[in-house]
Amino acid sequence: MYEGVVQDLIDELGRLPGVGPKSAQRIAFHLLGADPVDIGRLQEVLGKVKEGVQFCEICGNVSEQANCRICRDTRRDLSLICVVEEPKDVLAVERTREFKGRYHVLGGSLDPLSGIGPEQLRMRELLARIGGEEVKEVIIATDPNTEGEATATYLVRMLRDFPGLTVTRLASGLPMGGDLEFADELTLGRALSGRRAL
Amino acid sequence: MYEGVVQDLIDELGRLPGVGPKSAQRIAFHLLGADPVDIGRLQEVLGKVKEGVQFCEICGNVSEQANCRICRDTRRDLSLICVVEEPKDVLAVERTREFKGRYHVLGGSLDPLSGIGPEQLRMRELLARIGGEEVKEVIIATDPNTEGEATATYLVRMLRDFPGLTVTRLASGLPMGGDLEFADELTLGRALSGRRAL
Repeated sequence: MYEGVVQDLIDELGRLPGVGPKSAQRIAFHLLGADPVDIGRLQEVLGKVKEGVQFCEICGNVSEQANCRICRDTRRDLSLICVVEEPKDVLAVERTREFKGRYHVLGGSLDPLSGIGPEQLRMRELLARIGGEEVKEVIIATDPNTEGEATATYLVRMLRDFPGLTVTRLASGLPMGGDLEFADELTLGRALSGRRAL
Repeated sequence: MYEGVVQDLIDELGRLPGVGPKSAQRIAFHLLGADPVDIGRLQEVLGKVKEGVQFCEICGNVSEQANCRICRDTRRDLSLICVVEEPKDVLAVERTREFKGRYHVLGGSLDPLSGIGPEQLRMRELLARIGGEEVKEVIIATDPNTEGEATATYLVRMLRDFPGLTVTRLASGLPMGGDLEFADELTLGRALSGRRAL
């Protein structure tokens, strides 16, 4: 539609997730009028990403050094591991300020249709950690959807024979601040079956 | 929140228009897992934009050469000029396939509060074109909002004394496929005052 560089830019931006043709056009015209210094910064950081981002050797989270900030933190409880799918899930759990253990980032969830089996996830590394460290509890915090539940089931089967290890799963139920009326059947069903004595 | 390059990338992406923190994070993690070749292409096109994009010497549209595709097209009617605010408006008018003249891109609309007066727009270039080319009609196609209407009024005053030149404005009224009931008062008022005999 446009000529030359402008169309190339719109095409490249349109390939990013969540950026439709209209957004791509809007961002492109913003960049055409932007300070070259700003464009340079974006270009530079893309270069660094292209060279590769480092992942923590222990937990698999994105990291600046060989071990991430959380794994380096000596105040963390080494007996607790929270297993999550992605680095962004680490951030979500950290925001609660409720968890003082360490993490294990699987790098996704089991999805056989997309060719993602246990070998594509960091399962072996988790086994090695539980074998080598003094872990007492593994909290499975995969997403509460089909793939996340399948991954949780797989993890439970893999870990249940470790002596002295407790395997737990995040509670499912009504979201806080939500409305009973608007809860879907599945969530309300989970909330019922997981009811607690007061 | 994240460490190093990942956070830098999220920050830079978050500066783009229409990209919120969640989208920035999503795009960043997409890029972390993307093919370096794809990232390289985006990086390269940003470099070209940084070096500067060429604008058509005649109409001010984005262009690959000194003159844009439309101004180079000899089948275009030289007596008609459609004045628009931005390059994306050229595309919008082109999509109608109703216009066979050429364009003039102002590069924005009058907005004194943001310091955009007639000198910041390509008004002088428009005057030079009308003086030098055989222009019979100028169609003002600025946006139907406060700034666009102010720009249209300014253009009418500037152009009305040219001998033999007709100055027209795009019709305002009900959008096609719309519902009378849901039209705002201003639009419906314009539709009434601009009613046509059948």
